[in-house]
Amino acid sequence: MPKTSTKNKKNTLKKVSKEELIKKANKPAEDAMKMHPFYKGKIEVTPKACIRTYDDFAIWYTPGVAAVCKDIHKNPEKVFEHTNKGNTVAVVTDGTRILGLGDIGPEAGMPVMEGKAMLFKYLGGVDAVSICLNTKDPDEIIKTVSYLEPCFGGINLEDIEQPKCFYILDELRKRMKIPVWHDDQQGTATVCLAGLINALKIAGKKISDVKIVLLGAGAANIRIGILYMKYGAKPGNLIYVDSKGILHKGRTDLQNHKEKWHMCQITNKDQITGGLKEALVGADVLSAASTPGPDVVKKEWVSAMNKNAIVFVTANPIPEMWPWDAKEAGAKVVATGRSDFPNQVNNSLGFPGIFRGALDVHAKTITDEMCIAAAEALAKYAEKKGINEDYIIPLMSEPEVYVQEAVAVGLKAIEQGIARVKLTEKQLRKSAEEKIFRAIKDTKMRMEKGIISKFK
Amino acid sequence: MPKTSTKNKKNTLKKVSKEELIKKANKPAEDAMKMHPFYKGKIEVTPKACIRTYDDFAIWYTPGVAAVCKDIHKNPEKVFEHTNKGNTVAVVTDGTRILGLGDIGPEAGMPVMEGKAMLFKYLGGVDAVSICLNTKDPDEIIKTVSYLEPCFGGINLEDIEQPKCFYILDELRKRMKIPVWHDDQQGTATVCLAGLINALKIAGKKISDVKIVLLGAGAANIRIGILYMKYGAKPGNLIYVDSKGILHKGRTDLQNHKEKWHMCQITNKDQITGGLKEALVGADVLSAASTPGPDVVKKEWVSAMNKNAIVFVTANPIPEMWPWDAKEAGAKVVATGRSDFPNQVNNSLGFPGIFRGALDVHAKTITDEMCIAAAEALAKYAEKKGINEDYIIPLMSEPEVYVQEAVAVGLKAIEQGIARVKLTEKQLRKSAEEKIFRAIKDTKMRMEKGIISKFK
Repeated sequence: MPKTSTKNKKNTLKKVSKEELIKKANKPAEDAMKMHPFYKGKIEVTPKACIRTYDDFAIWYTPGVAAVCKDIHKNPEKVFEHTNKGNTVAVVTDGTRILGLGDIGPEAGMPVMEGKAMLFKYLGGVDAVSICLNTKDPDEIIKTVSYLEPCFGGINLEDIEQPKCFYILDELRKRMKIPVWHDDQQGTATVCLAGLINALKIAGKKISDVKIVLLGAGAANIRIGILYMKYGAKPGNLIYVDSKGILHKGRTDLQNHKEKWHMCQITNKDQITGGLKEALVGADVLSAASTPGPDVVKKEWVSAMNKNAIVFVTANPIPEMWPWDAKEAGAKVVATGRSDFPNQVNNSLGFPGIFRGALDVHAKTITDEMCIAAAEALAKYAEKKGINEDYIIPLMSEPEVYVQEAVAVGLKAIEQGIARVKLTEKQLRKSAEEKIFRAIKDTKMRMEKGIISKFK
Repeated sequence: MPKTSTKNKKNTLKKVSKEELIKKANKPAEDAMKMHPFYKGKIEVTPKACIRTYDDFAIWYTPGVAAVCKDIHKNPEKVFEHTNKGNTVAVVTDGTRILGLGDIGPEAGMPVMEGKAMLFKYLGGVDAVSICLNTKDPDEIIKTVSYLEPCFGGINLEDIEQPKCFYILDELRKRMKIPVWHDDQQGTATVCLAGLINALKIAGKKISDVKIVLLGAGAANIRIGILYMKYGAKPGNLIYVDSKGILHKGRTDLQNHKEKWHMCQITNKDQITGGLKEALVGADVLSAASTPGPDVVKKEWVSAMNKNAIVFVTANPIPEMWPWDAKEAGAKVVATGRSDFPNQVNNSLGFPGIFRGALDVHAKTITDEMCIAAAEALAKYAEKKGINEDYIIPLMSEPEVYVQEAVAVGLKAIEQGIARVKLTEKQLRKSAEEKIFRAIKDTKMRMEKGIISKFK
């Protein structure tokens, strides 16, 4: 297992300036510009089965392989037995919303998709392939992805702009019999929910009682709201705020945006209007996924929230407000998207374990209930280690987290009847452990043996 | 490097019965049915770059990766520097002609595509991904594959039925700026040409003089004929024979089959008619890629060929005639598709080295001239080792072969102005050696360390 940097071991809040943070953020960028051309890629394809002599190719390829092909032809489900389909996920983008960079095209999206694939393997033991598509047409994307079904066990949509990302996800989930996932929606929502579960414990509040303000009505926050509601938040207690203010039934400018318009109808029971300032008065939770700060959210607005307020400010690279400002304004728990502040709401905590569990039972989809099971597993893991204001959610560098999630997700899929394979809790744990720890061991060994060269 | 079985070291012709051969062929099939479910797949995805600590993900993924994305956005060619695109090939099928099994569907084609990907890496150091498409519509296949261009350095079409395979290949070659290759066409043709070059030396004949009979007018033989002609065979000296007899201008039943009809026009200068029997009278070469034998080609027909006749009978699993029968009928050189007879015409000798060379110079396509350069490199390699009637073509188990091919292909691409990168012969050799021997070493090590489990 690789060493974890000291900063992950104890993460307490220290004030830094915006300039210091930006300078600090430049370091990974500088390293990235040197290290990417050194390795020319972050993932590769390797044999998974033995090659004892060249004669083995008569087994793996023609003539021997024909027997296996015929077996799958007779019973298509056997493809999970005879091939790597069941452990392989396509990481699909059209390059229209790469990180915070916008529509920079599919080629420019490749490094992110490869990075994601690297995380999939190292954290979840999942084989992932970058698929960057040369079309922005939602219907063409849907068709193309659905044509890929025979060779993948799951689809991870990534960095596709809204509103088409909603349509693409919904359509593909209807058409395909493998899990289709948009990480910017479901993944982010799952990890936020995990954080919220523990934050509520620390704040001594209940999900069914709290008033939640969602700043930003993009793909992430739309889904975050949905998952909060599925977990017990009352729709009327949610208030969305987008760039034009609070969402309510009078926001007819949103009539053509199906998802936002729906939120206008079901949230904000008092139909209040105005902006974030007005929304935060008397709120218990601020869940922001909007634009980089630091002063998008003002201290005095947070001061107007209820006692023991919870503030998630997840914009990158700079959160919507400084976490110390939120604290000074009276917030009890503050989370951001950064690894150098406490309580990082980090997507990488979600998808590797969730897909691990879904793939191990050959799940046909990933339901909201499976997301909730994953969020609860995340929350429970942190709780067992001992939660406090500065530790509401596990760190990415705790591999056991992914195992716990995988088990929870696999069991939920079986319970819901969408698993093709039924495993016991013990079997699920063994499968996840083997695959995750194998990936870590393999990487370490290949580095030691110089197969992965030392960067110089 | 793995051990080579003894049968590859000295391969001389011994008579066996059809029953013995079929029984022998059952062994790999039996092993395949046990070993595929044991490993559940033949390829996997692994990190290619170092992961020293979890902090490295800040370089490989967000926030660091953004700098690399922006760099590609400014200059899309940089995708070759920052990602693995340049070493990654999609192995694409629609499952309509899997091996000799016909249209068994994309799921049932997966084991073949994964096997091919395994060969790509182990023999050529190329990362290959199986793409099995859930559509048979040629235009949909063309569109889908062309959408994949941003993330692949090359496309290997595989086991797609004719005649649509010709159209798909031609269209994709027109549209895409990366090599698109149909292995059943160009790959087979390249390896056959390599065999023919040395067979002609042994027979003491010249390509420009010989009369060549092509039995079968499928995807392979159409392309074989084209490559023979490009290499110097006179079109009028070629005679095609399909299931209905010799191709000539009166074969109006073929008017709707563009490729066959074209051959009706340009081959068979004497416009002879009849069947294989008539075609072979006075022929120098029989190049058969038709239906499994053993008695598709009769001894007495081969006896009617010219002195020092060359007979390629490449149908699998049983050649169109027994090689000893061909010999007894007077053939000087006989080649088959089987590894247990001398002179195996084996596709695996072609694509790994050809793609290695094409990828190393970021070639925009693979031309017929590059195929010829590869065929000549194959022929030369065998010639240097000492060719004879039982050794006209290298063995798959000679890795240096792929290096030679890669160098020849890379140099030809540079000469033809279709290489994006210009390397010297020495650089090309170094690149090919590093990548090919690294793949072999990696597999060996992962087997020794138990990452690839021992089959039991």
